[in-house]
Amino acid sequence: MTEDLILTVKCPDKPGITYAITGLLASVGGNIMESQQFNDPESGYFFVRIRARVPGGKATIEAAFAQLAANHQMTYQLSEADAPLRTLVMVTKDAHCLSDLLSKNREGLLPIDIVGVVGNHTTLQPLADFYNKRFIHIPISAETKAEAEAELLQLIEDEGVELVVLARYMQILSSELCERLAGNVINIHHSFLPSFKGARPYQQAFSRGVKLIGATAHYVTSDLDEGPIIEQDVVRVAHDDDERELRAKGAEVERQVLSRAVKWHAEHRILMNGNRTVIFS
Amino acid sequence: MTEDLILTVKCPDKPGITYAITGLLASVGGNIMESQQFNDPESGYFFVRIRARVPGGKATIEAAFAQLAANHQMTYQLSEADAPLRTLVMVTKDAHCLSDLLSKNREGLLPIDIVGVVGNHTTLQPLADFYNKRFIHIPISAETKAEAEAELLQLIEDEGVELVVLARYMQILSSELCERLAGNVINIHHSFLPSFKGARPYQQAFSRGVKLIGATAHYVTSDLDEGPIIEQDVVRVAHDDDERELRAKGAEVERQVLSRAVKWHAEHRILMNGNRTVIFS
Amino acid sequence: MTEDLILTVKCPDKPGITYAITGLLASVGGNIMESQQFNDPESGYFFVRIRARVPGGKATIEAAFAQLAANHQMTYQLSEADAPLRTLVMVTKDAHCLSDLLSKNREGLLPIDIVGVVGNHTTLQPLADFYNKRFIHIPISAETKAEAEAELLQLIEDEGVELVVLARYMQILSSELCERLAGNVINIHHSFLPSFKGARPYQQAFSRGVKLIGATAHYVTSDLDEGPIIEQDVVRVAHDDDERELRAKGAEVERQVLSRAVKWHAEHRILMNGNRTVIFS
Amino acid sequence: MTEDLILTVKCPDKPGITYAITGLLASVGGNIMESQQFNDPESGYFFVRIRARVPGGKATIEAAFAQLAANHQMTYQLSEADAPLRTLVMVTKDAHCLSDLLSKNREGLLPIDIVGVVGNHTTLQPLADFYNKRFIHIPISAETKAEAEAELLQLIEDEGVELVVLARYMQILSSELCERLAGNVINIHHSFLPSFKGARPYQQAFSRGVKLIGATAHYVTSDLDEGPIIEQDVVRVAHDDDERELRAKGAEVERQVLSRAVKWHAEHRILMNGNRTVIFS
Repeated sequence: MTEDLILTVKCPDKPGITYAITGLLASVGGNIMESQQFNDPESGYFFVRIRARVPGGKATIEAAFAQLAANHQMTYQLSEADAPLRTLVMVTKDAHCLSDLLSKNREGLLPIDIVGVVGNHTTLQPLADFYNKRFIHIPISAETKAEAEAELLQLIEDEGVELVVLARYMQILSSELCERLAGNVINIHHSFLPSFKGARPYQQAFSRGVKLIGATAHYVTSDLDEGPIIEQDVVRVAHDDDERELRAKGAEVERQVLSRAVKWHAEHRILMNGNRTVIFS
Repeated sequence: MTEDLILTVKCPDKPGITYAITGLLASVGGNIMESQQFNDPESGYFFVRIRARVPGGKATIEAAFAQLAANHQMTYQLSEADAPLRTLVMVTKDAHCLSDLLSKNREGLLPIDIVGVVGNHTTLQPLADFYNKRFIHIPISAETKAEAEAELLQLIEDEGVELVVLARYMQILSSELCERLAGNVINIHHSFLPSFKGARPYQQAFSRGVKLIGATAHYVTSDLDEGPIIEQDVVRVAHDDDERELRAKGAEVERQVLSRAVKWHAEHRILMNGNRTVIFS
Repeated sequence: MTEDLILTVKCPDKPGITYAITGLLASVGGNIMESQQFNDPESGYFFVRIRARVPGGKATIEAAFAQLAANHQMTYQLSEADAPLRTLVMVTKDAHCLSDLLSKNREGLLPIDIVGVVGNHTTLQPLADFYNKRFIHIPISAETKAEAEAELLQLIEDEGVELVVLARYMQILSSELCERLAGNVINIHHSFLPSFKGARPYQQAFSRGVKLIGATAHYVTSDLDEGPIIEQDVVRVAHDDDERELRAKGAEVERQVLSRAVKWHAEHRILMNGNRTVIFS
Repeated sequence: MTEDLILTVKCPDKPGITYAITGLLASVGGNIMESQQFNDPESGYFFVRIRARVPGGKATIEAAFAQLAANHQMTYQLSEADAPLRTLVMVTKDAHCLSDLLSKNREGLLPIDIVGVVGNHTTLQPLADFYNKRFIHIPISAETKAEAEAELLQLIEDEGVELVVLARYMQILSSELCERLAGNVINIHHSFLPSFKGARPYQQAFSRGVKLIGATAHYVTSDLDEGPIIEQDVVRVAHDDDERELRAKGAEVERQVLSRAVKWHAEHRILMNGNRTVIFS
């Protein structure tokens, strides 16, 4: 049992909320190690993330907090800090993002528990094998899409998956699946959104003659490339970089951006604020 | 008279071009100090920028080079390295870009000769005064646009203006003016193009929840926000940055990007490659 | 009277501190708008910054908070959010940092009240004049140092100066002065400390052949170039950048880094943690 | 046989050198695809890198160029553009740099031929195995150092190794070995040199409270951490990053910096200019 808990809360703002939360923690001898709060003047919402050491752990405050949350219309999550999220990574043929997630995870730099790698091709199975991760081949075509998604959902259920990472998975999830998994699917888009939505962003970037290319990690919604943005970064390109070189430079940024997004999600640093994200550092 | 010359050349690629150019320089005892060449496999064009010390200066090779250029269908420019471009800066009310250009210019960091500052408002006249630059007030409205542009063109002609910098000038030049000054007007757009074209880009960026905002310096064409990009850069923003904070952070990036673009243009580092730019470092 | 207050606290960590502070705020109907807390496991100290709306303003909680602070051995500051720090800027001959501070301040981007500019030369007096700031010429030499510093101290006292910014002030303050003003003097060093301490850092950087140069804003202590670091940044340089070009690129970074440091200090975001700084975003 | 050649030249500067080189290329029908030249006014040296398509390939101009080089006291290298350098990677226990080199190499993004991985521990053997690279265990201790280096040299000779990459190899090469392999050994140092030389740089960085940490790729010389710098980069750190987090963030920068340095070396973009490097883009 761990005493190290992470609490995230979102609710309509009003005076006294922090006092109520910290009071509950103080009443059981909890010590706040780290906290960050943000009130959005635009939406009128209050957001907080607290890491606290609570004698007795989660069980000690679970019931009391549920009551408090009900009183204040809170959306909240109470998690054990060292319980890694059960994570499924989905891929097609590009290795760089998967390779980065697996190697960071092995080095202890990414606090997730990768319960499996799903590929619609088998290209990356050897990589999963090397890291001793189960590889599940779920081929998909226009005809088999419904069936394939059903198989995926079953897997998610069986394995108690809490987070799905699309690590250059080149398929579009159905609206139903997006809604069902809302807030728990992270995608890496290989452009600096909202620039170059859709297909072949590096070719689009090359044609437009931009001087920086980028990548965007975002939560997946049924509205393609429009989900809440988690993280973005860019890299400088030059007139003599062809599309192939753009892809190579872009791959570097993609894996960094995706790994940061997954790390922040796994550390419960991200709260949803409409179509925008609050990210506590 | 200066012996320090800068030569830029664009022409269809074929073997022997560099040899022909360097031969001409060698024949008059010229010494190449710096050179950079790029062949675009896509367009089939050859681009080069050479800085050379030529005994006798520009006059020594001007005629011979014109002949060579004709033989090879070259577009070229032969400039004295220390002859600052006669430059007109156009503004409305925002001071940060103008202030940056003027102060860098005074400190000797921007090799241009600012012959005047044109404002459609008089807000920034005191800033021009402080730097001892002539301020020309050319108000503009839908009704007076043709007249105002005529006045501007007259000024450009009278002053022998070689470069026009739109330093947050909040007016759109007419297509005729754009075409007439093509390749010699640099604009700063306050977004990371092609994202957030058009009006109020910081508000658009805020609404979309991006994690980086940027600025783009580009040559002005009659196709708004679509001209060849010269330089771009970005700055990180956070969930608690409101639109005002985005504008403040953005202003920093705008002036850096614009100053770099103007410097590179003034140093004859930029060649046009269709709607893209070649920028020699 | 403003109700918008900023509170920063440092004290030995123990359970219940946040609860005590938020309790005090709640008891007078205060609403926390923004807060960030950090517990340093190494030093055992607790740090927090809170921005709160308190009916009745500072006077309402001043006495009660002093009592609380005494009970918990707190070092604290309770400030009105919109009360700009009375600031003195000190310069020699380089304009870029002063120019940046003055123009950002005029544009409303830097919440300080610049009560004067002190120069040991008069070179920058016209710049201060342009921005309607009082310029005080305090020449200094080995012989007159004590006298000059006495004059400076008198000025600081007379004007109620709360913050001194050394904006490329090329003199070393005496140990006595450093100690007297400890935590309230910000300097910009033109290198990426701890690299290239001491004189002529750009020449040192050029000689070593580094690929990035930088700048460091730090609090001044009697130990030259060793004070707590507030902010640092870098810019890429190339093999064909000579020392003059390094200085030009460096100047860009210097002014950005110094402006950020001054802004964060003015917004009460910086707390001292031994020789390191805690900076709340 | 390839017609795509890369030529790099360093020699004392004088007029006509470029003309002589391009003349030789033109005389055999060569077409220059890309070239960049730099004259160092300080050292008086001329540097150039040319990529050219030469009918008949290397054999066509080898002898003629050797003659030209002798006439002008040139140091030069004439290489086939698509002949990957035979490379040996040396490691200890840290996987991140090796993993990055191997995966980029497999994806075709790093034009080297990794002929083996040498480890003084066997920790990373499975990683080499996965990428089908020969792993050679050469343990080393104070007593066996001479013997171990002899074994290494033999391996280098047997395999025709052209480049040695120290990918977090935690041993210091002897002066003799450094001199013998001068210019062909790249090391990654886990700090932004010249800051934090020597051991435990992340601990040093943490103690000093810097706001950015970095990494430096450099050629190895017998003067520890003082060799010519190839590439550097940094990443932002915060007050709540402990030494472990610094190492994690640093690891990201290390592998990027090392991979870029190796790529540029393999593409013959780096020329030595005393203790500084010229890097053609």
